[in-house]
Amino acid sequence: MRIKIDLNSDVGESFGNYKIGLDEEVIPLISSANIACGFHAGDPEVMRTTVSLAARSGVAVGAHPGLPDLMGFGRRAMDVTLQEIKDYVTYQVGALQAVAKSQGVQLQHVKPHGALYNMAVQKPEIWEAVAEAVAAVHPGLILFALAGPDRADLEAMGQRLGIRIGFEFFGDRAYNSDGSLVSRKLPGAVIHDQDQVAEKILMLVKEGTVSCVDGTEIALKADTICVHGDNPSALALVRKIRKTLESAGVDIAPVRDFLK
Amino acid sequence: MRIKIDLNSDVGESFGNYKIGLDEEVIPLISSANIACGFHAGDPEVMRTTVSLAARSGVAVGAHPGLPDLMGFGRRAMDVTLQEIKDYVTYQVGALQAVAKSQGVQLQHVKPHGALYNMAVQKPEIWEAVAEAVAAVHPGLILFALAGPDRADLEAMGQRLGIRIGFEFFGDRAYNSDGSLVSRKLPGAVIHDQDQVAEKILMLVKEGTVSCVDGTEIALKADTICVHGDNPSALALVRKIRKTLESAGVDIAPVRDFLK
Amino acid sequence: MRIKIDLNSDVGESFGNYKIGLDEEVIPLISSANIACGFHAGDPEVMRTTVSLAARSGVAVGAHPGLPDLMGFGRRAMDVTLQEIKDYVTYQVGALQAVAKSQGVQLQHVKPHGALYNMAVQKPEIWEAVAEAVAAVHPGLILFALAGPDRADLEAMGQRLGIRIGFEFFGDRAYNSDGSLVSRKLPGAVIHDQDQVAEKILMLVKEGTVSCVDGTEIALKADTICVHGDNPSALALVRKIRKTLESAGVDIAPVRDFLK
Amino acid sequence: MRIKIDLNSDVGESFGNYKIGLDEEVIPLISSANIACGFHAGDPEVMRTTVSLAARSGVAVGAHPGLPDLMGFGRRAMDVTLQEIKDYVTYQVGALQAVAKSQGVQLQHVKPHGALYNMAVQKPEIWEAVAEAVAAVHPGLILFALAGPDRADLEAMGQRLGIRIGFEFFGDRAYNSDGSLVSRKLPGAVIHDQDQVAEKILMLVKEGTVSCVDGTEIALKADTICVHGDNPSALALVRKIRKTLESAGVDIAPVRDFLK
Repeated sequence: MRIKIDLNSDVGESFGNYKIGLDEEVIPLISSANIACGFHAGDPEVMRTTVSLAARSGVAVGAHPGLPDLMGFGRRAMDVTLQEIKDYVTYQVGALQAVAKSQGVQLQHVKPHGALYNMAVQKPEIWEAVAEAVAAVHPGLILFALAGPDRADLEAMGQRLGIRIGFEFFGDRAYNSDGSLVSRKLPGAVIHDQDQVAEKILMLVKEGTVSCVDGTEIALKADTICVHGDNPSALALVRKIRKTLESAGVDIAPVRDFLK
Repeated sequence: MRIKIDLNSDVGESFGNYKIGLDEEVIPLISSANIACGFHAGDPEVMRTTVSLAARSGVAVGAHPGLPDLMGFGRRAMDVTLQEIKDYVTYQVGALQAVAKSQGVQLQHVKPHGALYNMAVQKPEIWEAVAEAVAAVHPGLILFALAGPDRADLEAMGQRLGIRIGFEFFGDRAYNSDGSLVSRKLPGAVIHDQDQVAEKILMLVKEGTVSCVDGTEIALKADTICVHGDNPSALALVRKIRKTLESAGVDIAPVRDFLK
Repeated sequence: MRIKIDLNSDVGESFGNYKIGLDEEVIPLISSANIACGFHAGDPEVMRTTVSLAARSGVAVGAHPGLPDLMGFGRRAMDVTLQEIKDYVTYQVGALQAVAKSQGVQLQHVKPHGALYNMAVQKPEIWEAVAEAVAAVHPGLILFALAGPDRADLEAMGQRLGIRIGFEFFGDRAYNSDGSLVSRKLPGAVIHDQDQVAEKILMLVKEGTVSCVDGTEIALKADTICVHGDNPSALALVRKIRKTLESAGVDIAPVRDFLK
Repeated sequence: MRIKIDLNSDVGESFGNYKIGLDEEVIPLISSANIACGFHAGDPEVMRTTVSLAARSGVAVGAHPGLPDLMGFGRRAMDVTLQEIKDYVTYQVGALQAVAKSQGVQLQHVKPHGALYNMAVQKPEIWEAVAEAVAAVHPGLILFALAGPDRADLEAMGQRLGIRIGFEFFGDRAYNSDGSLVSRKLPGAVIHDQDQVAEKILMLVKEGTVSCVDGTEIALKADTICVHGDNPSALALVRKIRKTLESAGVDIAPVRDFLK
C-alpha cells in the first residue's frame, strides 16, 4: 500500500482591499486549505472566493480560526479565557461552515491560527477548549494539532470528544529532541535550505523520524505537512516537496482520505 | 381552531463589557428571539449565553444579521453590493448556527437588522440577496420580512428559493395606506400609547386589518409581531400585548409551529 | 498650607449605542477625568461629549489609552512590542488632544488603561515606552503611574523625558508591604467597606502611609486617588471620600494645580 | 515668476500585516503625502513609518481621514450625520498630528478619503463639516477639495473658518463641462493614456483650462494634482508627469510653499 500524506497551507488571509498570499498558485499544489475566518484575517467575501477556489482544485477545506486581532494578524498572544477560546472557535468555524455550504462544500478540518495555535501547544487545556468547540459544531471535523510526544494524550482527547486529530509536521522548522519546535527566537529555528526541507519531510513521511538540533533522531508520526504560499520562493519549495514525495512513491491527499 | 401569532424581539445585542437590553426579562415573554451576530452588535460569548437563555425559555432562536458597523449599531445605510450582503448574511447566520448547535439548538429564522432591513424594504433585490443567502445556508430557515402589499412577490421569491417567509407587523408604527411604514422622520410615525398599540395588534391578528394614518383601513396578514425589551416601559407593553392577545383567545407561538 | 489631592476616574467609556458608567454624575465629583480614546472603549462622539461635560464641570481632562481590544474592554494582556505600545499611545493621545482642542480644552494628563496599566506596573520598560510617547506628543502632559516603592525611578524617568509623573493611589485595593497591589486573584484584594476605603484614603493623604495586608504600615506618597462611577454605590463612595477629605481640610484639585 | 504646483498621493494605506501601495517609491516623487489615519486604512505603526518616510524625502504630510469602514476601504458611502463626520475627522487628524509631532513633523493639510470625499463633493454641507473640524484642530491646516466651479463658495467657507483651501485636480479623470468629474460608472471616466494625462495636467497648470468630454474647454484653477502609487505603471505615470511639468518650467512644491 502506498503511503499517503496531506499538504496544508494557510490561505484566504486577504481582507477587503488588502491582498496577501499567492492563493491561486498554492491552492492547486496542496491537499488541504486552512481558510481564515475573519478574526485575524479574511472576510466573508474572501472566505467565499477561497472556498470556491479550493473546491475547483479538489482541495479539502478547513477553518483557520484566530484571535480577534486583525491589526496583529492573530500573531500576538492574548490573555483570553478558555471559554472565550471556545466561543471564538465556534463562531469562526460556523461562519466558514455556512460559507462552504453555500458553495456546496463540507468542511474537513479546523486548524487554530498563529498565537492561538502556539498557546495551545503550550497549554493542553487550550487544545481541549478548541477541540470541544470543534466537536460541538460537527463531530466529523478533524482537528489539526502539532505532531509531537503528546500524540497519545491528544488522541485520547479526540476519542473522548468524538473527533479525529490530524497531526501536523513543520518541514521548515528545527525540532528539539523532546519533539517541540525550536523557538523562533533562537538561531536556526527556521530552515531556509529548500533541499534540506524536502529531505526532512521525506524522512518524516517514509521513516517516521526527525533529526533534531542536538543531533539525535526521534520518532514522529504526522498526517499533514504545513507549507506556505506567501511568495514565489515558498511556491518553489512546495513544488519541490511535491516532486520529492511523488518521486518516492508517496501520495498527496487530504487527511479525510486516510485518517482513521 | 385558535389563531396563532408569534412575538419576536431583537436580543443578544450586548457586546463585550457593554450590556444593552433587558434580555433576561423580555425573552420569557416572546416566542422568537432575533439574536445579533457580531457585525452590528453581539459577540461570540453574548451569542452563546443568549441562545442558552432562549432555549431555557422554550423560545425559538433566529439570526439577526446586520451591516458591519458596530459604532453605528447597524443603523446607518451603507452602499454595499448585493454580493456583499449575501456574504455578510451567510457569514453571520453560519456563526450563530454553530453557536446554537453547540447549545443543542436549531435556528428557526433570520431577520435582517436595522439599516439592512430598511434597505431591503426599499429594494426588492436586497430581500432577494438576503433570501438567497439564507436558503443556501439552510432551506429550513424562515426569513422574516415586512408584512405589506408585496406579500405575493416575497412569497413567490420564497417558493422559488425553497424557504418560507414570515411576515412581520410593527404594532408601534403608523402605516401608510399602501402598507408601508410611515417614515420615522414624520410626526406620529411611532405610536407611544400602549393601549393603542395593543388594540392595533389585536385588530391585525383577529381581523387582518390595519387602520392607516389617512384613516383608511387596509388588509394586512402577518405571522409575527415585533416587540421590544429595551427598558421597563417596553417590557410593560409586551406584557400588555400578551395579555390582550391571550384574553382574546390568541395563542402566542413561534412561527415554526404554524407557518406553512 | 492646605493639603491638595486629585480625584481621578475613568469616564467616556461608552461606545456607539452602548452606554456605560454614570459619567454625568461622577464627573462633577472628581477633579481629573480619564477619557477613553477608542481602542478599548470610547468613540469620537463619546470623546467629544465627555470632554465637554468635564469642561463644564471644571474638571481636568486626560487621555486613557488602552490596548486595541474593544471586545475585551482592554482588560486582556496582549503580547505587544514596546514600539507598538508607543505607537498606540501616541495615536490615542493625539486623537483626544484634537477632540479636546475642538472643545477649547487642553489635556492635563495620560493614564494607561486596564491591561496596559497592569503590564506597565509589571515591566518598567513599558512605563518608559508610554512615557516616551507622552513626552513626544506634549511635554506638558502629566503621566499617571501607580504610587509605590519605585517613585524615585519613575520620577527620574520623567525628568529624563521632560514630563511630570502623577502618582496614583487605589483606596479600594489592599496593598502588599512592598507597596504593590494585592493581586485581584487573592481574597481581600478589593476593599468593599466604604468607611474603610475613606479612612484609608484620608490616612494616605494626611499621613502619607498605608496599612498593608500583613499589618505593617508603609510610607506612600500619592498625588491622585482613583475612584469609580460605574454604579450608584460607587457614586456614594466618591461622595463619602470627598466629604471625608474636605472635613479634614484637604482640597480636591486637579494635579496640574499642585504637582511640581 | 515660475509657476508652482503640488503633486499629492494617498499613502500609508497598509494595515498590520497587509502591505498596499508602493509608498517608498512614490513618496520621493510627490510633494504632499495624504496619510491614512486608521479608519479606512493605516494603523499607528504604518502612520509613523509613513510620516518618517515623507519627512526624509522632504515631502509635506497631511491627514487622509476616511469613514470607519476598514473592510470597505472607506469607499462605501455611509449614512453618517454631519456631527459624526466632524467627530471622525477631528479624531483622525488629531491622531496623525500627534504621530507627526513625535517625528518632528507638522501637518500641512487634510484631504478626506474615498466615499467621504465623494460625499462632500455631492453635498456642500459635508465640506463645511470637514472644514469646521479641520479649523478646530489647527487653523494652519490646508483643506484639499475638488477644484471646480464652486471655487468661490469653498474659498468663502475657508475664509469664514480661517483655513486655506487647496484645490485639487485629477489628471486621469474626464471632466464634465460644469467642472464635475465624469462618473466612474460611465465609459471614459478614467483616462488610461499616460501621454494624454500628462498633457492634460500641463494644460491645466500652464493655461488653467481643461478639455471636457463634450469638447468644450473650461477654466479651472488648481493647486495640487492627485497622482497614484499603487503599481509600477502608476509610478511611471508620476515620473512622466514630473518630467513634463519640469520640462515646461513648472516647479513641483508642497502647497504650503505657494498657497496664499
